[in-house]
Amino acid sequence: MTDHDLAFACIEEVARLYRKRKLSPVELTKLMLTRIEQLNPKLNAYITVTAEVALAQAKKAEAELFAPRGRKGHRDRGPLHGIPISLKDNIYTKGIRTTAGSKILKDFVPLHDAVVWAKLQEAGAILLGKTNLHEFAYGVTTNNPHYGPTRNPWDLSRIPGGSSGGSAAAVAAGLCYGSIGTDTGGSIRIPAGLCGIVGFKPGIGRVSAEGIVPLSHRLDFVGPLARTAADAALLLHPIFLRGKKEPRLSSLQKFSARSLGKLRLGLPKEFFVDVISEEVYIAFHEAVRELQNKGATVTEVSIPLLSETEEAGNDIAWAEATHYHQQAGWFPAHSAEYGEDVRVRLEMGTRISATAYLKALETRDKFIQQFHLAMEDAGVDAIVVPTTPIAAPRLGEENTRIGHENHPTRAILLRLNRPANLAGIPAVSVPCGFTSAGLPVGLQLIGAITDEPLLLRIAQVAQAILPVLRRPRF
Amino acid sequence: MTDHDLAFACIEEVARLYRKRKLSPVELTKLMLTRIEQLNPKLNAYITVTAEVALAQAKKAEAELFAPRGRKGHRDRGPLHGIPISLKDNIYTKGIRTTAGSKILKDFVPLHDAVVWAKLQEAGAILLGKTNLHEFAYGVTTNNPHYGPTRNPWDLSRIPGGSSGGSAAAVAAGLCYGSIGTDTGGSIRIPAGLCGIVGFKPGIGRVSAEGIVPLSHRLDFVGPLARTAADAALLLHPIFLRGKKEPRLSSLQKFSARSLGKLRLGLPKEFFVDVISEEVYIAFHEAVRELQNKGATVTEVSIPLLSETEEAGNDIAWAEATHYHQQAGWFPAHSAEYGEDVRVRLEMGTRISATAYLKALETRDKFIQQFHLAMEDAGVDAIVVPTTPIAAPRLGEENTRIGHENHPTRAILLRLNRPANLAGIPAVSVPCGFTSAGLPVGLQLIGAITDEPLLLRIAQVAQAILPVLRRPRF
Repeated sequence: MTDHDLAFACIEEVARLYRKRKLSPVELTKLMLTRIEQLNPKLNAYITVTAEVALAQAKKAEAELFAPRGRKGHRDRGPLHGIPISLKDNIYTKGIRTTAGSKILKDFVPLHDAVVWAKLQEAGAILLGKTNLHEFAYGVTTNNPHYGPTRNPWDLSRIPGGSSGGSAAAVAAGLCYGSIGTDTGGSIRIPAGLCGIVGFKPGIGRVSAEGIVPLSHRLDFVGPLARTAADAALLLHPIFLRGKKEPRLSSLQKFSARSLGKLRLGLPKEFFVDVISEEVYIAFHEAVRELQNKGATVTEVSIPLLSETEEAGNDIAWAEATHYHQQAGWFPAHSAEYGEDVRVRLEMGTRISATAYLKALETRDKFIQQFHLAMEDAGVDAIVVPTTPIAAPRLGEENTRIGHENHPTRAILLRLNRPANLAGIPAVSVPCGFTSAGLPVGLQLIGAITDEPLLLRIAQVAQAILPVLRRPRF
Repeated sequence: MTDHDLAFACIEEVARLYRKRKLSPVELTKLMLTRIEQLNPKLNAYITVTAEVALAQAKKAEAELFAPRGRKGHRDRGPLHGIPISLKDNIYTKGIRTTAGSKILKDFVPLHDAVVWAKLQEAGAILLGKTNLHEFAYGVTTNNPHYGPTRNPWDLSRIPGGSSGGSAAAVAAGLCYGSIGTDTGGSIRIPAGLCGIVGFKPGIGRVSAEGIVPLSHRLDFVGPLARTAADAALLLHPIFLRGKKEPRLSSLQKFSARSLGKLRLGLPKEFFVDVISEEVYIAFHEAVRELQNKGATVTEVSIPLLSETEEAGNDIAWAEATHYHQQAGWFPAHSAEYGEDVRVRLEMGTRISATAYLKALETRDKFIQQFHLAMEDAGVDAIVVPTTPIAAPRLGEENTRIGHENHPTRAILLRLNRPANLAGIPAVSVPCGFTSAGLPVGLQLIGAITDEPLLLRIAQVAQAILPVLRRPRF
């Protein structure tokens, strides 16, 4: 296997090579660090590279894994043992600077690890570094004014999406084997879609957000970005609160494409394809047709209240974000230290009324109920929609033309993602094709509450059928 | 026993007379209805008198109680069986008009009973009628623009307090044996204090608010008004969510005054006596001294954040009230149908920002914690404070002079009550004396979360020691 093949191998393959002693964690970590050294200057996916920590962790993993079985010191922590990953830089790492992509926290070194990072360390994961993000996770471009923009590996003149843009770019470019991001309105799924990888946003109560710089208390979710749905499942497993009778996420990869005949997907009649670029529309519908051809049943569903999710989501996110920054003592005291776009949004947050906020919470309750009733009525396992109505926009693009109309780029990237945050339900973006310009298109699967395991299985099947992954050249 | 003595008898006494067949539920109900007919025109305590319902319920109670023991039809539902009570008119009564003191709901006839009323019926209580209240429970005067003001039985030129003013006046005047009210910022305790009776506000999660027209979702509490703490315990018992190991509230009356030697009361150093009329100050401190003389330990305590409870309480109540009225479609669509004061407050609610609301929720969380830490540090069983800084103001009084300063009457009546709503902790007002003009003064006991049974015991002891109850003449 060439170094390049190895850099894009799936986690299961790496784990197998480790156990055959055909590859060592230190060797692989060095390969990753070399690639980061070579390619990160182009991508700017990492804010901080933790080479020393990574090598120390790799040595420890190697010692544990390679000590002879049955001997003192041998320990196999499972499939993530010795796997080099990255973390979005709003996730607390003890002793390692955690900037949240901000100037305000540029020298912040947490005294403890975020719960998710503590759990991933326990599972043997290796930290390559902290990835770039939209400042304070409050935006979708990762055009960061303090640490520079992250670039899309499929086209360096384009954004990777955000806010977990650094994570997505690093995963897509083979600069790590997976990353943990956060998603308040699509911040995992949008960059996954625009970078041609998998991004998984769990539902309510599944993954701890403790030790992560919050954006919006009620809408924040934490989850993995990976190149395959199987890798995403492996990354999610150690941080996932699993019911006693639910399958282990790490064993989902055994699920086969033959089950497709039983799969019932719901295609929303409204909202998700109301505003969409022609190329994304075509790639998305070809993917859906392919799933149908392979046996899946696709039925149209009507989901009420979708058009109200944008305003409700904005009211909650804006108010909660501003509240957090006020309580932290940063806003408005340090207004000048924010990027222009984030400052404007924090100001908008001061103008949300309490009654609008309470109304938004009620819309949320109603939408949760109506979404589930609609799924139940249609008898579907998951909803299938595009992840974003457009492929990756150019860096600095504020408005995007679709047909004859201009749309604000930010709003249109968020639009199809917000519903799953508002409802607190799981959603995953898987790559489903490319535009003629070679930009990835994402297909989003949205599930019912607590249906994360089912959604990961469907994502794996979908990925097995849909166009083979390509590797970006840049 | 004269009819007048009987009208002011305690519930236990009535229950005893019933079981000795010395009094019948129908007879007592008729006495109450006669008194209401005679005295309600002066007091205006009832909006709706349910004479037919009351007589039918009394006949049923009489049939059950008086059927020979062991015979078919005999049933003893406990101490409330056959006891005539009233309900504040924001509590749903199936088939009986429930106005919430408003013009908007003047013809509203609920299709179901509030949970508390369903439970009280199950316990055998008889409904004499629905009592007057401040419009939509949104004020403390019960000067109702649609149904007329309720008058204080101790002085008809004065208000009974509110919003449960009709309930307090009816109980104080011997026009029922107890009432159920609601308390968002003192609406049970304030009128209890100003009318010389007992008002009990439970803590979080103890009494269902389902089927009650809400004022503020997070600050609303439902509880009894009665002439004695023992009566309040009997009324609370059937509607109270009791822990398995907690004492039955109906048996608390066995508690004796001898336990006073073990009682440790906390007297706050700040806030509660910062703004107070001289007469209330004297009556309150004489009562505290009396408790001390009889053996109670009184220690000074310092409770943090008290000065922030008013703003936090207002922000939450105003926003939630306006939100409810907006969602119901009443405000601003039917603005003209509200009384001036309520309309102004609903307008104020539209101006609370979401961040102020979120900040208030945080203040609440902190205050709950700090209040309990302060009690723990001081080693006290309950906090003892005045219920209101002034005795009953005159009808129409907007400002009240204390010393050399004028204070808004509404704010000053709420001031000492809001903390227990914000913290969701139990509090009770018991009569503790009179001003020189013969107006009652209330003493408020505030307890830790889940300490309702303890608080009721202390209230009973306090009432046994403090000045004997007098009956108002009007």
